[in-house]
Amino acid sequence: MEYIQQQFDVNFSFRVFFSRDLFDPANTCLSAFLESKAEAAFQKKLLVVLDGGVAASHPGLAEKISYYLMQVRGFRLAPEMITLTGGESVKNDLSQLFSLVDAIDQHGIDRHSYVIGIGGGSLLDLVGFAAAISHRGVKHIRIPTTVLSQNDSGVGVKNGINYKGKKNFLGSFAPPAAVFNDSTFLATLDGRDWRSGMVEAVKVALIRDAPFFEWMEKKAEALTGGDMPAMEELIYRCAALHMAHIGGGGDPFESGSARPLDFGHWSAHKLEQLTDFSLRHGEAVSIGIALDSVYSCLLGWIDEAAMLRIVNVLKAMQLPIWHPLLQKQDDEPSPVIAGLEEFREHLGGQLTVSLLRAIGRGAEIHHIDLDMLYKAADICQKLQS
Amino acid sequence: MEYIQQQFDVNFSFRVFFSRDLFDPANTCLSAFLESKAEAAFQKKLLVVLDGGVAASHPGLAEKISYYLMQVRGFRLAPEMITLTGGESVKNDLSQLFSLVDAIDQHGIDRHSYVIGIGGGSLLDLVGFAAAISHRGVKHIRIPTTVLSQNDSGVGVKNGINYKGKKNFLGSFAPPAAVFNDSTFLATLDGRDWRSGMVEAVKVALIRDAPFFEWMEKKAEALTGGDMPAMEELIYRCAALHMAHIGGGGDPFESGSARPLDFGHWSAHKLEQLTDFSLRHGEAVSIGIALDSVYSCLLGWIDEAAMLRIVNVLKAMQLPIWHPLLQKQDDEPSPVIAGLEEFREHLGGQLTVSLLRAIGRGAEIHHIDLDMLYKAADICQKLQS
Repeated sequence: MEYIQQQFDVNFSFRVFFSRDLFDPANTCLSAFLESKAEAAFQKKLLVVLDGGVAASHPGLAEKISYYLMQVRGFRLAPEMITLTGGESVKNDLSQLFSLVDAIDQHGIDRHSYVIGIGGGSLLDLVGFAAAISHRGVKHIRIPTTVLSQNDSGVGVKNGINYKGKKNFLGSFAPPAAVFNDSTFLATLDGRDWRSGMVEAVKVALIRDAPFFEWMEKKAEALTGGDMPAMEELIYRCAALHMAHIGGGGDPFESGSARPLDFGHWSAHKLEQLTDFSLRHGEAVSIGIALDSVYSCLLGWIDEAAMLRIVNVLKAMQLPIWHPLLQKQDDEPSPVIAGLEEFREHLGGQLTVSLLRAIGRGAEIHHIDLDMLYKAADICQKLQS
Repeated sequence: MEYIQQQFDVNFSFRVFFSRDLFDPANTCLSAFLESKAEAAFQKKLLVVLDGGVAASHPGLAEKISYYLMQVRGFRLAPEMITLTGGESVKNDLSQLFSLVDAIDQHGIDRHSYVIGIGGGSLLDLVGFAAAISHRGVKHIRIPTTVLSQNDSGVGVKNGINYKGKKNFLGSFAPPAAVFNDSTFLATLDGRDWRSGMVEAVKVALIRDAPFFEWMEKKAEALTGGDMPAMEELIYRCAALHMAHIGGGGDPFESGSARPLDFGHWSAHKLEQLTDFSLRHGEAVSIGIALDSVYSCLLGWIDEAAMLRIVNVLKAMQLPIWHPLLQKQDDEPSPVIAGLEEFREHLGGQLTVSLLRAIGRGAEIHHIDLDMLYKAADICQKLQS
């Protein structure tokens, strides 16, 4: 049969910068990046979408951002700065998506211009998706303001919003033009956000980098207590591991068999949803990591000492390791455990769950024994107290 | 300043198959493709979205498709086949997009499953976009049923829908898993669709392939009269040129300076919109090609003989080469010509218009002289009569 073969490679590259006080007029990190993209023939535009919670914690921030960006040569700042209330709920409302699409249209943001998202992971997910589908993709810059977004989602290549209660049902793979991690934003985080953000570092260390896990064991108290230089190091190392996984895994858009770094995540997504996001993502992942670490131990993949080291790091970070929704509810299955099928469907194909062969070494499994999983949940409950 | 460099290549590859009577049980073109993608570990799913106009022209088609796809090993056909009325209007209604997203959700189409779009370019644009944003991209197969979609849009890598009156404002770059061009569908096209579909072949020949243009000059009458083998050759050659441009141009997703093969298109998009799509896309492009060929001639880039050869091919195909909206309207500017800025904005950056240096050789220009453009329009009006 006759056919024409199409085949091409698309190269993607971007930098994740680490800086402090990004919008200080003396800090040229962002302005130098933008000016390197300027073109003599025409002016490019900038549209800023700012997380309202971040703005509230940093009085004068919007004005400071405007002043900074108005000085950038070759660019014109849109007269309106869009402020949205961040957090997971911003991803539940399609009208938020279309308000951004409308702003991109109204301010004439074309494919040479930039949408700059400043906020937590949820806001960045929404902004990235709006940019990705407008004009078949306008460029976007991410300025993540939380521990979680600086070390994990903000440095990745995905975006998305929730749809009909399904997390990230709508979204795309769309690498940012650049990411700017500014630790100044971390200073005003509330304690839960500060602590829970560390859990993705625990996750990636457990499956990839034992020395990093050992470093966190040593630093857990200092990190939990607010040690900023330690947190900067945690974020840098976690972001680097995350980026190496995406860039070095051979399948950054997960089109084939490549899998995301989702140890501890299958139950976490469901827990977040079932608790109406009163659990932070990181708290839910902490529970998921504990559950899957205990399950790995029950399978004989890791020994009890290793399992306890993991649980103890999470507890030292003052993170939960169990939730009542992991139990059978009046003889009905746990609604979290019933969510395994939804998890399979989102990734597609065969069920694949990440577990641990050792601290620093993840492995995958395609079958979960539900009785053993309930037993793991019971052990988590005991270890929690 | 400290940064981590991310950088990776994503490989895309797909085949465009050419066949006849694709859903004949004896034709294994599609079934063999699908079965090559089957996996022992789990069943993949198929969801079909069929153009209602195509179904009406081919009685029994839906049943034939269902029967064919139910025999494919390793796949399960969704119980519902979705039928949408094709044509440009299907791209104007966001609820159509979400009806497809909902169907993808309801039928459990995951990232290993396939959405199969069967219809004209508009329907395929909608289906491709719905697939691209669901689960961050489920696979889609295109079965284009018109001359235009078989030789041009259907073999490309874009999708999109219109938003607030702006053509393709929302969309993405998302290569299909495969394309199946079945000439059987062409036999029932109405005359306008049959003829206007040839114009993208004229376009690509003019900027890339003089021998192909000469072939069309010789074959214009036979093609216009319904010669199917000639039409199959036209589609194959046009699709091959289009695919070579995308795959060989170094920037298939148009992220940098690469430009689409859009000779004659800047005015065509606006003409379609201003006539509420009563002009077919191909008819509008025919007018656009005539206008920009005459403009190329006025600039001295091509000689009058070449310009007349182009106009004569379009006229032999019984296609329009002028429209009253190209004139000043009561001393107001032509609304088509006023659309130049919108065209610039959609592509972004500097205005860039494709013109001709010779038959078979396109070239770009960044400034259009409006007086000369009105003069070109006047010449088109005279040549039309």
